[in-house]
Amino acid sequence: MSITVGKSVARVDAFDKVTGRTKYYEDRMPAGALYIRIKHAEIAHGFVKSVDTAAAEAIDGVVKVLTCFDVPDIPFPTAGHPWSMDPGHQDVADRHLLNRHVRYYGDDVAVVIAENEVAAMQGVRALKVEYEELPFVLDVQKAMEPDAPQIHENYPGNILKHTDIRKGDYAAAIQEPGLIKVEGWYETPTVQHCHIENHGCYAYEENGRVVVVSSTQIPHIIRRIVGQALGRPWADVEIIKPYIGGGFGNKQDALYEPLCAWCSTQVNGRCVRIDCSREETFVSNRVRHAIRFHIVSWLRKDGQLVARKVECFSNQGAYASHGHSICAKALGSFAQIYPCDHMECDGWTVFTNRPAAGAMRGYGMPQASFADEANIDECAAAVGMDPLEYRMKFIMPKDYHDAFSGNTNYFDSFRACLEKGRDAMDYDRRKAEFAKDTGSVRRGIGAASFWYNTGVYPISLETASNRMQLNLDGTVTMQCGETEIGQGADTAYAQMTAKAVGLKSYKDVHVVSCQDTDITPTGLGAYASRQTYMEGFAIDQTGRLLRQKILAYAAEMLGCSAEELDIVEGNVVRKDSGAVEMDLSHLAMTAQYNPVHSEHITAESTATIRSNAYSFGCTFAEVEVDIPMCKVTLKRIVNVHDCGSLINPALAEAQVHGGMSMGIGYGLSEQLLFDEKTGKPLNNNLLDYKLSTVMDHPDLEALFVENAEPTSPFGTKALGEPPACSPAPAIRSAIYNATGVSIDTTPITPHVLYRAFKEAGLIHDEKEGD
Amino acid sequence: MSITVGKSVARVDAFDKVTGRTKYYEDRMPAGALYIRIKHAEIAHGFVKSVDTAAAEAIDGVVKVLTCFDVPDIPFPTAGHPWSMDPGHQDVADRHLLNRHVRYYGDDVAVVIAENEVAAMQGVRALKVEYEELPFVLDVQKAMEPDAPQIHENYPGNILKHTDIRKGDYAAAIQEPGLIKVEGWYETPTVQHCHIENHGCYAYEENGRVVVVSSTQIPHIIRRIVGQALGRPWADVEIIKPYIGGGFGNKQDALYEPLCAWCSTQVNGRCVRIDCSREETFVSNRVRHAIRFHIVSWLRKDGQLVARKVECFSNQGAYASHGHSICAKALGSFAQIYPCDHMECDGWTVFTNRPAAGAMRGYGMPQASFADEANIDECAAAVGMDPLEYRMKFIMPKDYHDAFSGNTNYFDSFRACLEKGRDAMDYDRRKAEFAKDTGSVRRGIGAASFWYNTGVYPISLETASNRMQLNLDGTVTMQCGETEIGQGADTAYAQMTAKAVGLKSYKDVHVVSCQDTDITPTGLGAYASRQTYMEGFAIDQTGRLLRQKILAYAAEMLGCSAEELDIVEGNVVRKDSGAVEMDLSHLAMTAQYNPVHSEHITAESTATIRSNAYSFGCTFAEVEVDIPMCKVTLKRIVNVHDCGSLINPALAEAQVHGGMSMGIGYGLSEQLLFDEKTGKPLNNNLLDYKLSTVMDHPDLEALFVENAEPTSPFGTKALGEPPACSPAPAIRSAIYNATGVSIDTTPITPHVLYRAFKEAGLIHDEKEGD
Repeated sequence: MSITVGKSVARVDAFDKVTGRTKYYEDRMPAGALYIRIKHAEIAHGFVKSVDTAAAEAIDGVVKVLTCFDVPDIPFPTAGHPWSMDPGHQDVADRHLLNRHVRYYGDDVAVVIAENEVAAMQGVRALKVEYEELPFVLDVQKAMEPDAPQIHENYPGNILKHTDIRKGDYAAAIQEPGLIKVEGWYETPTVQHCHIENHGCYAYEENGRVVVVSSTQIPHIIRRIVGQALGRPWADVEIIKPYIGGGFGNKQDALYEPLCAWCSTQVNGRCVRIDCSREETFVSNRVRHAIRFHIVSWLRKDGQLVARKVECFSNQGAYASHGHSICAKALGSFAQIYPCDHMECDGWTVFTNRPAAGAMRGYGMPQASFADEANIDECAAAVGMDPLEYRMKFIMPKDYHDAFSGNTNYFDSFRACLEKGRDAMDYDRRKAEFAKDTGSVRRGIGAASFWYNTGVYPISLETASNRMQLNLDGTVTMQCGETEIGQGADTAYAQMTAKAVGLKSYKDVHVVSCQDTDITPTGLGAYASRQTYMEGFAIDQTGRLLRQKILAYAAEMLGCSAEELDIVEGNVVRKDSGAVEMDLSHLAMTAQYNPVHSEHITAESTATIRSNAYSFGCTFAEVEVDIPMCKVTLKRIVNVHDCGSLINPALAEAQVHGGMSMGIGYGLSEQLLFDEKTGKPLNNNLLDYKLSTVMDHPDLEALFVENAEPTSPFGTKALGEPPACSPAPAIRSAIYNATGVSIDTTPITPHVLYRAFKEAGLIHDEKEGD
Repeated sequence: MSITVGKSVARVDAFDKVTGRTKYYEDRMPAGALYIRIKHAEIAHGFVKSVDTAAAEAIDGVVKVLTCFDVPDIPFPTAGHPWSMDPGHQDVADRHLLNRHVRYYGDDVAVVIAENEVAAMQGVRALKVEYEELPFVLDVQKAMEPDAPQIHENYPGNILKHTDIRKGDYAAAIQEPGLIKVEGWYETPTVQHCHIENHGCYAYEENGRVVVVSSTQIPHIIRRIVGQALGRPWADVEIIKPYIGGGFGNKQDALYEPLCAWCSTQVNGRCVRIDCSREETFVSNRVRHAIRFHIVSWLRKDGQLVARKVECFSNQGAYASHGHSICAKALGSFAQIYPCDHMECDGWTVFTNRPAAGAMRGYGMPQASFADEANIDECAAAVGMDPLEYRMKFIMPKDYHDAFSGNTNYFDSFRACLEKGRDAMDYDRRKAEFAKDTGSVRRGIGAASFWYNTGVYPISLETASNRMQLNLDGTVTMQCGETEIGQGADTAYAQMTAKAVGLKSYKDVHVVSCQDTDITPTGLGAYASRQTYMEGFAIDQTGRLLRQKILAYAAEMLGCSAEELDIVEGNVVRKDSGAVEMDLSHLAMTAQYNPVHSEHITAESTATIRSNAYSFGCTFAEVEVDIPMCKVTLKRIVNVHDCGSLINPALAEAQVHGGMSMGIGYGLSEQLLFDEKTGKPLNNNLLDYKLSTVMDHPDLEALFVENAEPTSPFGTKALGEPPACSPAPAIRSAIYNATGVSIDTTPITPHVLYRAFKEAGLIHDEKEGD
C-alpha cells in the first residue's frame, strides 16, 4: 500500500526539529559576521535634525555608523505581494532604509555596525539624536480629523485608501416599515504575531551581487523588494530562506532585509547581521491592524437581513505595508457570509503614529469575524432566535456563488460544520443546562463562523512552480518557492509529490526546504493559506511532466510505447497486465549512466492558478464566567473546518490547534498598548503582553468536514489562517450566553468585563474599606 | 557589440578572490563544528592489533574516539570516475573508512572527534596503537618480485592490472637488417599536487540524510562514493561544493568525505570537520604515479621508426584509486604521437607501500611525455638529426585519425605549434649560437611535444547537463555540475551562455558556482580537461531550448510566429527587419507576472557527448647549465597549444602559466622522498618539498594556434592539463643540447646532474682539502 496523501505521517523534519538539529538563519551564520544594531526613535512623530555619531564611532569595535542622512533617497514598498505590472496595483512605496521623518515611536533612524554585539549596543546608546517634535495621533478616527497631524504627504486626512462596496439600494431598503435596527461599534486591538523565532537576517556581497539569508516567508518577493530598495537590478540580489521559526504574516513583509543588504554594501560587502530582539519584533516589525467597525443591520421580524451598513476604520500605523488590502478583505467578508441584498460598506485605512500594521494570520478576517458575528448575535437576540439557529437559517446557502472570486459553496459546508460542532458540543442540552445558572459563576456556550478565500486570485497573481528530479535511487527531489515556515508544508508536498509521480511513499520524496532565489523555481511564498492549493496545481502538473519523461525513457529501454506503461508504487509497470518492468532506481541509473543516451531526468513547470475556493468553518466555545472576579475560564473549544481533503490529518489538526491558540489570545488577553502621552509602546515584551499559552487553553479540539474541493487537483483548500478567525467571537458569544452582556471589544480582559458588568448592573463598586 | 566568447574579459569571481571575500568550505563552516583529527599509521605495512583509546577519551573536549575496529565492513572505491553499469568497468573497491591492514606509512587507523582542535590533536597523540609489522616495499619492480610483501589479497605480484597494446608484429619487424636500436630506462617521481587549499570538508545530518560540504572537484561522483562507503541509498547523501582553492586531480578522488560523513552519523548527526594539514595532504591524499619506462625504439637510418617496445611500471602505492587508467593513458600516447607500425606496449600498475597514487593534471601524460620525448631525442641523435627537425618529420601527420577515440588531427596542428615555437624562440639561430659554448657554463635549447584527449569518451561516460533560468532583469542564471575549481570555468561558461542565448554580455549571465547535488543538474565535475568541451555541448543545447521558450512567449505576446523572431544582444527582434520588439527583461517580467499565463522561463537538458578531440602542443625551453655547480637555470620557456578556439584568451594564458609552473617543478625540483628503512615520507611539507615557484621561473610565455575544433559547438578542446605535459622533457632536451648529457630521470636536480656529469666526465671529484 502506498503512503501518500490522506495519511497522518510524521513530518519530514520532525526528528531534526525535536533534536535541535534544524538549521535556522542563525545556525548558518558565518563566523565573523558584523553586528548591526538599530537606533529606534524615541519620539512618536517628528524630524531628525541631527545625529551626533562621534561618541559611537569612538567605541572600540564599532566599524561604521550610518544614519538617516546617509541612505539612498529611494522610497520602496514592503508588503509581500507579488509584483504587478500595473502601476496602479503596486504597493505603496513609502519607506526609506532609515527615516528622517519619524512616524512612530520605534522608527529606524540610524544603525551602528560593530565587530561584536556589545559594541554595537553601546554604539547605539552613544548616538545623540536631535529631533524636531511634532504632534502625534494614535486613534484611527482622530487621525481622520481635519486638524490631525499629517503623517505622509499626499494623504489628506491620513487616509491611505477608502474602499467601498455597494449592493442594492441601502437607503431605499431601510424605508421598509417594521424593520428592526441592530447597531453596534466593535473594536479590535493591535496585536503582534509572536512567532517563536524573531526576525533576523544576514547579508554579504558575492561577485558583485548581494546575498541575504533571511527568516522570511517570501524569498522571491524579498528579492524584488531588496532590489527596489537598493536601486539595483533584481537579479543582483539573492535571497536564501532556511528553516524559520514561524511567521504568521509578519515575515510576509520585507522587514530588515533591505537595510541589512544595504549595510553590507557600506562595509565593503562584509557579512552583517541584524537580529531583532523580541522588543523590536513587537514594535519595529509589523502588527495586526486594529480595526474599529460600525455596523447597522436592518432585519425583518423573522430575522431576515434586509440591509446592512458597515464601516471599517483600519489603523494602518506609520507605514503602508499591506495597507488597504486587509481592510478590503475584512469588508468583503460581510457581503458574502450572511447574504443581504442591500449593503453599503465603507472602509478607511488610515495612517496613525503606531507601528506599521501588515499581514497577520487571517488578514482582516479575525477582525471582521469578531464584529460581524457579534452583530449577528445581536440580530438573533433582537428577533428572539437562538444564535446557532439564526446562523443555520441565514448563513451562506449551498451553491452560493461569488462571481468575482469564482468561489462556490458546493456542499452546504457551513451547515455541515455547524451541525458537526453542535453535536460535538452537545450544544442544545448544554445550552439549556447553562440557562439555569444564576449565581455569580455562570456558564455559557457560543458559536461563530467565518469563510476564507484560498490564495489571492483574482485580486493578485497566483502562480506556483516546481522542479522535480528523479534520483538514482528512485526517489524524487522536489523544489518549489512555496515555503515551509513551520506549518508542515514540506511534508504535505512530499505526500502530494509521491501521489503525483506514483511513488510508494512520501519518504521517497526529498523536498528541498531551503529556498534560494538564484535556483529555486519561482514561487510566491507562504501566505494567504495558498500552499497546498496553489503548489498542488504545480505538483500535479510537474508530476505529470516527470512521469512523461520517465515513461518515455522506459519505453526507449523496453522498445514499446510510453502509452503502454504506467508508474505504480515506484515501479514502471505494464498498463495492461500490471507486470513490473523495472523500479525507478534501475531506470534512473540506466538513464544517467547510459553512454549512448545519458539523461538526468527532471521536469519543471509553472502553473498559473485561475481559481479560488471557499474554506468554511466555525468555532464552538464553552466558558465559565466568574462575574465578581470579572474572569472568564474557557472550558471547552471546538473548531470545525471544511478545508477540503486533508493531505495529512495530523498536520491539519496541528494547524487548527495553533490557530485556536492565537484566536483565544485574540479573544481574551492579547493587545499591544501605547502610552497616550508619548506614543511609546507599553508592553512590547512577552512578560507584559499576555500571549495565549497552553496554560490558558482547555484541550483544543479540531474536527473536519472533508468535502474534496472540486477546483483543486488534490481536493484541498485554505487551512493555514482559518482556525484563527472564529475563536474570539465564539468566546464572546459564550460570555454573552452566560451573562447576557454583549462585549463589543476584544480582548475581553477583566478590565473590559469590569466596566461592562458594572454598566449591566451585574457588579457594583465595593465601598472603600470593604 | 556583444561581449561573449573570444574576449579576455575579467573573471566573474576576480573581485571577490582578490579582496578575500570568496567563501571556501571553511568560510561556510557552522559555528560549533566538532574537529576530527586522524591517527595515521607509523608503520609502512602491517596490521593494527589494538588501539588503546582510554587516555584519549579522558581528555577534556574529546567527544568520541573511533578506530578501524568500529567502521563498517564495506569496501569502497575512491576514484572520481563516473559510475558504470558494467561491473567490469567499475573502480576497485579496496578502501575502508579506517584500516586494520595498514598499507602505507600514514594510513588512517583511527579518529578523535573533539570540541576543539587542540583536544582532537591531543587525543590523537594519546592513542596507543599496537601493530603487527610486516615487510614493506616501495619500489615498483621490487613489488612485482615473487617474494615481495603482498599488499592486497587477490593481486599476485601486487599487480593491480596489466595493460597491453599490440600493433603490427614487433618481433618480426625488428629483424629488418640495418635498424638502429635506441633503448632507455626513464624514471619519473612521486609528486603531489600542492593546490593552495588543502582538502577539507564538513558533514552533518539533516532530516535523516547526510550532508557533506567539501573541497572537491566532483560533487556528484562524491555523492555516489559516500553512499557506497556508508552503505546508504545515494540520494541519502547531499554534497555541496563551494569555491575551492585548486585540485589538480587530487580532489578528483573521494578523500575524506566518506569518513567525515560517517563520523557525523556516529555523533548523532552533529557537524564534524576534517581539515587536512599540508603534511597530511602530501601523504594521505593522493600523489602522482611514479612511472618507470623502458623503451626500445628501432629506426632506419633516415630516422623512421620501424618498431617500438614500451614497458611502463606504474607505482600505484597502497590503494587502487584511479588505478591502471593512468598507466593505460600513458601507454596509449606512444602509439599515436610518433606513429609506428609495429608496437609492443605493456603497462603494469603495481601496488607498493607508498601513498596511493591518483589523478593529477596530465593523468599519466607528463610521465609518458618525459619518457617518449627523451627517447625521441635519442633517436634523433642516433641518426644525426636535429631533434626539432626529427619531430617535424615524424610526428603525427595531418588527417591522422584514431579510430578508437574518433580523434582527428584536422589541421596539422603539431607542425603549426612547433613552427610557432621555433619562430618565437629564434630556435635555429640560438641553437647555432649555443653550440659555440664550451666553457663551464653552457646554454642549450630544447623542445618537446605531447597530445591530449579532451575528456574520457569513449572509455567512460561523457554527459553534461545544465539549467538556465531567465531572470526578471533579462539576465540568465546558469547551473551545471562541471565545477569551477580555480581554473576560470565559470567565466568561460558565462561567455558561452551569453553567446548561446543571445545576450549582450557575459555579465548578463550569473553562473551558480556552488554545486549542491540535491539540486544542481547532474554533471561529472572537473577533470580530464573536459569543462569547456563537454559543458559546451550542454550550454549550446540548453541555450537553444531556452531561446525556444523565450521566443514562444514573445510570439504569444506579439501574436506572431516564433520563427519570425530572434534574440540578439538581449533583445527580441524581428528576423526580417532586425526591429527590436522588446528586451528580455520586459519579456521575463511580463511572463512571470502575467495572471493569465504566468511562466518562469527555464530550460534544462542533458547532453550525451560522443566525441573526443586532440589537443596538441609543445614546449620550447632554453637553459643555462653551470656544470661545476650542477645547476640549471631556466632562461626562457614557451608553451604553444592548439586547444581550439579560445573562449577567453587571458584565462587560457593563465591556465598555461599554471601548467608550465607545474611542469618546471616536475622537470627540475619536485619529488616526494621516502625513508628506505621505514617507508616514512621524508619531505611532506612545503619547506623540504621543492615546489616550483615564481622565484624559479623566467617569464612564462604562452602562444596559441587557434584552430576551431570541428566537433565542438564552441570550437574548444582540452587545455586544463596539456600545459603541464611537455615542460619537463623540453628542459631535459635543452640540458642535453647544452651539455650533451642525457638525463633519464626527473626531476633533474643538482644531485642527478652531479652523478650524470661525473659519469660523462664533465666534472671530477675535488680532492679533499681543495
